[in-house]
Amino acid sequence: MPHRPAVLIMQPALGLLTPFLETAYRVFRLWEGPPVEAQADIQAVVVIGEAPLDTAVLERLPNLKLIACFTSGYDGIDLDWCAARGLPVTHAPAVNHEDVADHALGLILAARRKILAGDRTLRDGNWRMESRLMTPSMKGQRVGIVGLGLIGDAVARRVQVMGCEVAWWGPRDKPSPWPRNASLLELARNSDILVVACRADETNRGLISAEVLRALGPNGLLVNVARGQIVDEEALIAALRSGTLGQAALDVFETEPVDAARWADVPNTVLTPHTAGATTEAVQGMLGLLMRNLAAAVADEPLITPVVPTV
Amino acid sequence: MPHRPAVLIMQPALGLLTPFLETAYRVFRLWEGPPVEAQADIQAVVVIGEAPLDTAVLERLPNLKLIACFTSGYDGIDLDWCAARGLPVTHAPAVNHEDVADHALGLILAARRKILAGDRTLRDGNWRMESRLMTPSMKGQRVGIVGLGLIGDAVARRVQVMGCEVAWWGPRDKPSPWPRNASLLELARNSDILVVACRADETNRGLISAEVLRALGPNGLLVNVARGQIVDEEALIAALRSGTLGQAALDVFETEPVDAARWADVPNTVLTPHTAGATTEAVQGMLGLLMRNLAAAVADEPLITPVVPTV
Repeated sequence: MPHRPAVLIMQPALGLLTPFLETAYRVFRLWEGPPVEAQADIQAVVVIGEAPLDTAVLERLPNLKLIACFTSGYDGIDLDWCAARGLPVTHAPAVNHEDVADHALGLILAARRKILAGDRTLRDGNWRMESRLMTPSMKGQRVGIVGLGLIGDAVARRVQVMGCEVAWWGPRDKPSPWPRNASLLELARNSDILVVACRADETNRGLISAEVLRALGPNGLLVNVARGQIVDEEALIAALRSGTLGQAALDVFETEPVDAARWADVPNTVLTPHTAGATTEAVQGMLGLLMRNLAAAVADEPLITPVVPTV
Repeated sequence: MPHRPAVLIMQPALGLLTPFLETAYRVFRLWEGPPVEAQADIQAVVVIGEAPLDTAVLERLPNLKLIACFTSGYDGIDLDWCAARGLPVTHAPAVNHEDVADHALGLILAARRKILAGDRTLRDGNWRMESRLMTPSMKGQRVGIVGLGLIGDAVARRVQVMGCEVAWWGPRDKPSPWPRNASLLELARNSDILVVACRADETNRGLISAEVLRALGPNGLLVNVARGQIVDEEALIAALRSGTLGQAALDVFETEPVDAARWADVPNTVLTPHTAGATTEAVQGMLGLLMRNLAAAVADEPLITPVVPTV
């Protein structure tokens, strides 16, 4: 039996991939100790693209051919560092954007139509006929999409069926059925609901600032299904506490997992533990792409879904 | 100043209408005591259509011209009794069906994509990177609509955008873009999600029986935005406890408000306090129709939205 190629899983959260990877590879797990004896055998590392990648580990792998992101995002990877070494990066694009958009829709409805608040009212025995929970109709609500990529487009199509008005902003104009506002601030001012759906990088850290939240206003709802770092979380918490901002529905956070205490007293929030894209079907699709990219790298064949660096 | 016509509000939950009604009428509230001195002046009663109507009170109003349901539903009204007395009934149709469908969508996503469960996990400090909450993709889920009226149609249009497959059943066939199944049981068997969206009357009490719930099955989700009595609630609770049925997301119940203790130990539920149609915009629309129907009745003009009895 020939020596099987080896792969190294970098994060414990990906430990579940072990049995699948073992069908074709020897599998090492970084958190069980650095694979000193197999360093020269490791041809690929398997990573969560959004997690900061420790390049010091990679420096010790002389035959490394691929950084394979299990995820769609790859904002934890220093692409310049990879380019300088001729080290390719693959990811799983266009697999779960419809799922993420479904989750965004669920967050919007849970917050706006008070589904979470209603469930709590009922379970706490506080349902009174005289004080019915009233909510705004979705029809006519102005939804602003920050970043009209695959996710943003899928959110727009969904809220349009409910009679919402859609507009968007992104740094680059593109053809779309919905109008683009001249600036993020203008979009926030013109929106009842602002949905963050853009890719994260160092240029848009804290993009959703105190000023943007103030423009969204006391009846506004902020939804984030992109990355925590895009929102100035301290400013968000302050805005919710003071009522400067109406509501927030978040699937992503600056630090994950979050400290529950950080959000315990923050009013008018719906919070989910980064599950927007974590559907069974999406994970199967991501696993399929991972296996195909690994096989291509090991065989020195063209990669299936390489990351194309954007400048 | 001429003697102003009088109206009688039957239920405390409608007490909030008083200031609006007082712009044109003398207003009496049944729960403050029967209006003995004004019995002959009362030309209309204002009611919640789904609440059983006490006809004994009406018998004492010699000049009654109208039973005005504030609501769309009128299943608490004995239409035969009204017809025998030549007493017309009005309601507020086609005002809030889009809102109810939005809420149904919110219930589906809250249950299926575990938005409530995720929020609870995070707040309880139980978010672990190693045990990410996984959910099924909405795409490809088979949604069965029970009753393809305005609400059912609006639900179908919404879930279709998420890539769900839609089918329906109702006692009468009608032209529609979605296939009708031959029976409710067949629809339940062929569905992952069953949405109850039909009108309630004595013929469909307990329609969603233990047998239907069993056909929907251990991965199935029952959604009810119609009326509580359409579902055999004892059978539903038993099915959820035993795992015969996967999940339930309910906005309506056999008895409202519900006793919170009744649902405390029932797993896999999302429960809202009959808020699906209670949006600000819908209530304004219902109020507008109520005022116009009252004005027409008092002036002996044609009613705007009379109930047409269905046999």
